[in-house]
Amino acid sequence: MDGSDSDICWIGGGAATPAPGGFGSRADWLARAAAAGAPVPAALLLRGQAARAAAEPRRMAALMAELTARAAIVPGRPVLFALRPGAHGAGAITPALLNLGLAPGMLAALAARHGNWAAADLERRLVQAWGANVQGIEREEFEFALYDALKARGAESEAELAPDDLAALTERCRALIASEGGEIPIDPAAQLAAALGAMLGRWESPRAARRRLARGLAPDAPPQVILQVMAIGLGPGASGAGIAGLRDEATGARRQTGRYLPQAQGEEALMGLRTPAVLSREERDRLGLGTPSLEERAPSAHAALTALQDRLESALGEALEIAFTLEDGALSLLDLRPCRRASRAALRIAVELAEGGAIARPEALSRIAPVQLDEHLHPTILPGARAETIGQGLAASPGAASGPIVFSPDAAEAAAAAGRPSILVLTETGPEDIRGMHAALGVVTVRGGMTSHAALVARGLGRPCVVGARDLSLDRAAERLSTRDGRDFGPGAMITVDGATGRVLAGAVETRPPEITGAFATLLGWADEARRLGVRANADTAQDAATARGFNAAGIGLCRTEHMFFQRGRIAAMREMILAETPENRRTALAHLAPMQRRDFVDLFREMAGLPVVIRLLDPPLHEFLPHGPDEMAEIAEMLGVPVARIRNRAAELAEFNPMLGKRGCRIGIAYPEIYEMQVEAIFAAAVEAASLTGQPVCPEIMLPLVSAVRELEMLRERIDAVAARITARAETAGPLTYTVGVMVETPRACLRAGDIARNADFLSFGTNDLTQMLYGLSRDDAGRFMPDYVEKGVFAHDPFHRIDEEGVGEIIRIAIARARAVKPGISIGLCGEHGGEPGSIDFCERAGFDYVSCSPYRVPVARLAAAQARLGVAP
Amino acid sequence: MDGSDSDICWIGGGAATPAPGGFGSRADWLARAAAAGAPVPAALLLRGQAARAAAEPRRMAALMAELTARAAIVPGRPVLFALRPGAHGAGAITPALLNLGLAPGMLAALAARHGNWAAADLERRLVQAWGANVQGIEREEFEFALYDALKARGAESEAELAPDDLAALTERCRALIASEGGEIPIDPAAQLAAALGAMLGRWESPRAARRRLARGLAPDAPPQVILQVMAIGLGPGASGAGIAGLRDEATGARRQTGRYLPQAQGEEALMGLRTPAVLSREERDRLGLGTPSLEERAPSAHAALTALQDRLESALGEALEIAFTLEDGALSLLDLRPCRRASRAALRIAVELAEGGAIARPEALSRIAPVQLDEHLHPTILPGARAETIGQGLAASPGAASGPIVFSPDAAEAAAAAGRPSILVLTETGPEDIRGMHAALGVVTVRGGMTSHAALVARGLGRPCVVGARDLSLDRAAERLSTRDGRDFGPGAMITVDGATGRVLAGAVETRPPEITGAFATLLGWADEARRLGVRANADTAQDAATARGFNAAGIGLCRTEHMFFQRGRIAAMREMILAETPENRRTALAHLAPMQRRDFVDLFREMAGLPVVIRLLDPPLHEFLPHGPDEMAEIAEMLGVPVARIRNRAAELAEFNPMLGKRGCRIGIAYPEIYEMQVEAIFAAAVEAASLTGQPVCPEIMLPLVSAVRELEMLRERIDAVAARITARAETAGPLTYTVGVMVETPRACLRAGDIARNADFLSFGTNDLTQMLYGLSRDDAGRFMPDYVEKGVFAHDPFHRIDEEGVGEIIRIAIARARAVKPGISIGLCGEHGGEPGSIDFCERAGFDYVSCSPYRVPVARLAAAQARLGVAP
Repeated sequence: MDGSDSDICWIGGGAATPAPGGFGSRADWLARAAAAGAPVPAALLLRGQAARAAAEPRRMAALMAELTARAAIVPGRPVLFALRPGAHGAGAITPALLNLGLAPGMLAALAARHGNWAAADLERRLVQAWGANVQGIEREEFEFALYDALKARGAESEAELAPDDLAALTERCRALIASEGGEIPIDPAAQLAAALGAMLGRWESPRAARRRLARGLAPDAPPQVILQVMAIGLGPGASGAGIAGLRDEATGARRQTGRYLPQAQGEEALMGLRTPAVLSREERDRLGLGTPSLEERAPSAHAALTALQDRLESALGEALEIAFTLEDGALSLLDLRPCRRASRAALRIAVELAEGGAIARPEALSRIAPVQLDEHLHPTILPGARAETIGQGLAASPGAASGPIVFSPDAAEAAAAAGRPSILVLTETGPEDIRGMHAALGVVTVRGGMTSHAALVARGLGRPCVVGARDLSLDRAAERLSTRDGRDFGPGAMITVDGATGRVLAGAVETRPPEITGAFATLLGWADEARRLGVRANADTAQDAATARGFNAAGIGLCRTEHMFFQRGRIAAMREMILAETPENRRTALAHLAPMQRRDFVDLFREMAGLPVVIRLLDPPLHEFLPHGPDEMAEIAEMLGVPVARIRNRAAELAEFNPMLGKRGCRIGIAYPEIYEMQVEAIFAAAVEAASLTGQPVCPEIMLPLVSAVRELEMLRERIDAVAARITARAETAGPLTYTVGVMVETPRACLRAGDIARNADFLSFGTNDLTQMLYGLSRDDAGRFMPDYVEKGVFAHDPFHRIDEEGVGEIIRIAIARARAVKPGISIGLCGEHGGEPGSIDFCERAGFDYVSCSPYRVPVARLAAAQARLGVAP
Repeated sequence: MDGSDSDICWIGGGAATPAPGGFGSRADWLARAAAAGAPVPAALLLRGQAARAAAEPRRMAALMAELTARAAIVPGRPVLFALRPGAHGAGAITPALLNLGLAPGMLAALAARHGNWAAADLERRLVQAWGANVQGIEREEFEFALYDALKARGAESEAELAPDDLAALTERCRALIASEGGEIPIDPAAQLAAALGAMLGRWESPRAARRRLARGLAPDAPPQVILQVMAIGLGPGASGAGIAGLRDEATGARRQTGRYLPQAQGEEALMGLRTPAVLSREERDRLGLGTPSLEERAPSAHAALTALQDRLESALGEALEIAFTLEDGALSLLDLRPCRRASRAALRIAVELAEGGAIARPEALSRIAPVQLDEHLHPTILPGARAETIGQGLAASPGAASGPIVFSPDAAEAAAAAGRPSILVLTETGPEDIRGMHAALGVVTVRGGMTSHAALVARGLGRPCVVGARDLSLDRAAERLSTRDGRDFGPGAMITVDGATGRVLAGAVETRPPEITGAFATLLGWADEARRLGVRANADTAQDAATARGFNAAGIGLCRTEHMFFQRGRIAAMREMILAETPENRRTALAHLAPMQRRDFVDLFREMAGLPVVIRLLDPPLHEFLPHGPDEMAEIAEMLGVPVARIRNRAAELAEFNPMLGKRGCRIGIAYPEIYEMQVEAIFAAAVEAASLTGQPVCPEIMLPLVSAVRELEMLRERIDAVAARITARAETAGPLTYTVGVMVETPRACLRAGDIARNADFLSFGTNDLTQMLYGLSRDDAGRFMPDYVEKGVFAHDPFHRIDEEGVGEIIRIAIARARAVKPGISIGLCGEHGGEPGSIDFCERAGFDYVSCSPYRVPVARLAAAQARLGVAP
């Protein structure tokens, strides 16, 4: 029977298995468990109009009769029913109603089967629950009544009350209901119909609609109610109810978890009214508990439970938490759902299920949200660790680290030199702070967004980072970080950065180490088999490259050469070059840099031997390399032996209103040919040297940044070819150099002219950060100011710097790819930039036909999994 | 006979008229004149291979025979020939060779017809020209020989020499030629063939190729040579040669101009050897000359010449300069070309030719380069005025003005308040300088490009402006402007700004006033009939609007409301608003501004009664309104009664790395709803008031800036509608308010989403400045740094901020228009921004299907003409 046709679906009792997802989540799981042979009491799911119709007694009577018949219950045996919401998570608003259908005339039959106490308690339970959940009387009223009854007998719980005490308590509850003008119908069908009516009323209340909305469900979802034959957890023998799982929530290791409470129903074992037992003897020993476990109390019931758990996990292909009832030793499965699990546990569970054959590998791949992998790659705050949040910002780079505060990159370097840890706290960062960021264990900035300089660099370095912690205020001169509530943290004060959640915590909070072997490695191996997209890394140093290679990156998709110039000992030569007034002087200064560049590239090529490396020529505006404040200018002037006025003038000359839209990228290469020539010479010389050292040929891929007109590419390509010809002519190589020249497509114009550009380029790599900035007219450095507000108001569906904007950026990329492939079908097309490590964006790249994505080394595993999911069509 | 078939074209002598442009320029004009019945001596044009073949004597003999026959020359009459380059402008390298074909045996016949002196002089002229132009002997050698001959006889010119003296001189010249190994062939055909060979050699020399290249002609153009029967200007009666025009070069007024020299050939009248005569008695009287005019010397020849000029101007539809020869009173037309003329003259000539029926109106419209109109709209440097250039920058805003230098906007305002002129000199300008720019007569900045703030504002204000005068250096603190050669100009030093050429001139240079009536008005009336594109103006004030209306703008396409807030007395309220910390305080501050805004709009609507007005809501980032330096901050703090730290903090909070890509445009409107609400209320209230004052309905068009996502438009449109509903509900209007809401399309993303946007918008107006910035990733303020270099190197074909970049910006605009019209075919599409006044860009707008362009008021006439040319398909 198909739910979508009838709006009534039979569960268990020999009914057919529904298609997964065809029911509400709870009904769905129950039906699948029943189909797998689990002892699920017969039930039916009523949806929408069918549920409303059943709130009429005659219709309800017919359904009850059919359910009883399907359940093959011995005639004459008293049958009670439960009504539960059909979807998980709905219970908080529309709680389940148990023990329905109990008419006073049935008490004798119930007593005969379950004993006098159980019969009396079943009636008390029905009346009390009716009062609270159908009549809507304050729950406390009934709790007072129970309390009075217990006190009168000096009892701890209702289990110690005599049947007559329970009957008296029941009457007091009935009187409460009557005082509110209510009455419990005597006729079982009328009773069930009235209970269902009340349940539907709650389901359709505005409050329930709001709750559904908050949980991301349709607020106007039609009601779904399960009518189920009750398994009674009260009475003689092993009778009770419990919850059971098979996996450790934190690690995913196989371990029976759960609680059991004798003489109980539903989820009472978790409610703390009485002390429950654990399930296994092993667990009891582990915890050193006095109360015997279920295994000890009822070995055969426990064995049946364990066998059921095993069967369900492999049949249903999921680690489950189940609710069960024992009725005189007989096991019933009342409810089941995927068990809660931490990210690491989720990964281990998925891998073990697939290894055990319970699920296919693509299914295992689909179950892990790629960003969850981060938890494996970085230390994380230990779950449950004591932590006091002093500031909240954006989770800019994952990981957690503790250390004494430093307020300057120099202090961070000094600490690192002395072997001391530090956390660098700044307003925001610039290129001159990179060394300090490298030296610190973690970074906090009080300004900036997800794609601010600090965030980008921290992700690249693998440093935990929180940016835009605007509730902290920083007085850099006074070296003081203040919280909203007036607490001050000075230099040396211990704090912890939690890059996974964006929190800044007081003191040193306990963390746990990264883990990238075992299930992690297995899953990524499967991902590599499943994906089509290549995954490269953005790496500027041999150290980055080693990290990337450790994560199985297929090459380097972006080496930003400028970062090399900010290093100690190089920035001075760089400044000398910028201050040069003639091409000759510039060439002299560049000659100092050339050997260092060459060495950088040799190291990079050796590290990546056999894999492709894309090197982007100098990109940032030259003023980024000059000192900013007057003190620093004076210092540099003295060091270089030039008048300070010359530095000041040159800085003023180079200053720009909108550096993002200024003289940068290939515009620098065109204006000062000698800069790119030095870099290209260094690349070629390093390629020759690295090839002879490793015995593997090196084919550098030279990338030109910020191209907007094809003529820029033509001119620069000519010059690169000329350098290559010169080197070949000097016979420094055995044969002609091999290399390719490509374009970093990061202006909208380059996208529109992609056909012309492709004719002259060997590869295209989209720089989606800049493309997003230009398409929106929005600087990533300034967007942090209002982006949260914009996303919250729904102006933008996502922060386009975080997840690629498919409607705009994606649209122009598709235009570009079509135009490029129209003239050169085989041209290599990549994406480098932060989006390359974001799963939603990677899914776009798969659909748009990219050849590869490139991201920070630490995002490579995330990208590998996301690429597999994209290929499998199971991206979130 | 068709030139393209035979490579020999017959001119005059009853030959057919060639298609215009089928010949070289000189041959073409001669042929057209001959066809119009002018007395053009029979001639033929030899091109390419035909010319080379004719350098062979037998072939030359055949051509001479045929030419003589076609010219219907009485048998036995001696005939001489001229060889001239077929294209105008080639004479400097390959001068014409006259009197060819003169064999010693012909002297008697020539003497019989022209007299002994003339015959002797013809031979002397031939030999002398041969020596210089065929043999390549230094011209001075022959001049010394002539000088010696004149000195020996005490004569002033060769006219005073006797035939024998001339014969002796001729022999001396022949000896010179012989001494170089040369000889003049006796046989006329051989003589002509040798002369032609020499001429072709010069034509094909590398020097000639370079000259052609420099003039924009094909360097390898095939030779074109005219072989023409000579009209002899020597001998009895009225014999001589001259040049004649019919138009005043500066004004275009009808006035016979030119010179005549008796006993002369070719253009000798202009060579200054002897004093020539003017042509008319009137001219002689006007100039107070002693020498009688041609009119007095040879009245009937003068009458024939004047009649010929009249006939040619109307038959050929062009004002011409002609070269003529009189041979015993008989008039021959040897050469003709369009006369030189200043811009104003060109306009008057075109209009008068069309009014006289000589050309059609579209032809008249096509003859004027739209930018030439600028000369009519602004004072210009008087042609020929004495001027000393002290600096050269970009011609950013046309016009010329003189005044004492001031170095600050305040000083300019102080001067204006005292009724004194001033020229404002700054490094560059910002919004806070607008008042000062308004107060000054002209503006010079030493930095910035064609679309820098200074250039944009100056064009809007109609102030002459030179930007990027980088050879001047400015020390603002010392108030000193220095030139490259070390001259200093302090405050009060008189300078002149020539906005037409970008020159900064020392002292006060004489100018002439603008002229926008007469021919100017007539031509623009014709343009209005011819064009399809609407032309609106960008106007921020009622004063701008009045200027625009005076130039027949069809409405206002862009009113930038922010300029209103920079005015004195408003900036304080604006700053108060920005410093407000709550929406309520912001509202209070805005309440001060509201009545002023309303008044602005009432004035604007009254001025433009009956015409559409597009009002753009606040666009620039708020920090532009805050003071910058510490002194100014302190001043403002005191004025507003707030601590200076609050201003400093707010300024720091609002500071942006890339203001162009920051929190501006509709992002401000979304973040601070009360700002746009105040503006919209003011617009609606003003519309109601202006309508009641003028009796004409007002339908404001409200434009939202910097939209990048359709949701921005939806949200703001809802709020605008809510304001309108509120006003209607308050019953302040008779019926519901009429207004439209549109989008300024200035981000690439808005172009791609134009379909969605059009669904929610009544009009689109492209802001091509920002669009260009974002498409290229290039800030207009920073581009000046390297744009000249880029254009010179051919990286960009044009400065894309000057002329629209059709391949990129144009491409995305076409995509946007197609997407917008697909969902709303009738949607109004405009362009506002500097490109709206640039003819090449206007031509694009016509082709791309725009409804209108909008430009600065002073560019409206330019745009009207350019739109007509675009429609007629005659855009340059």
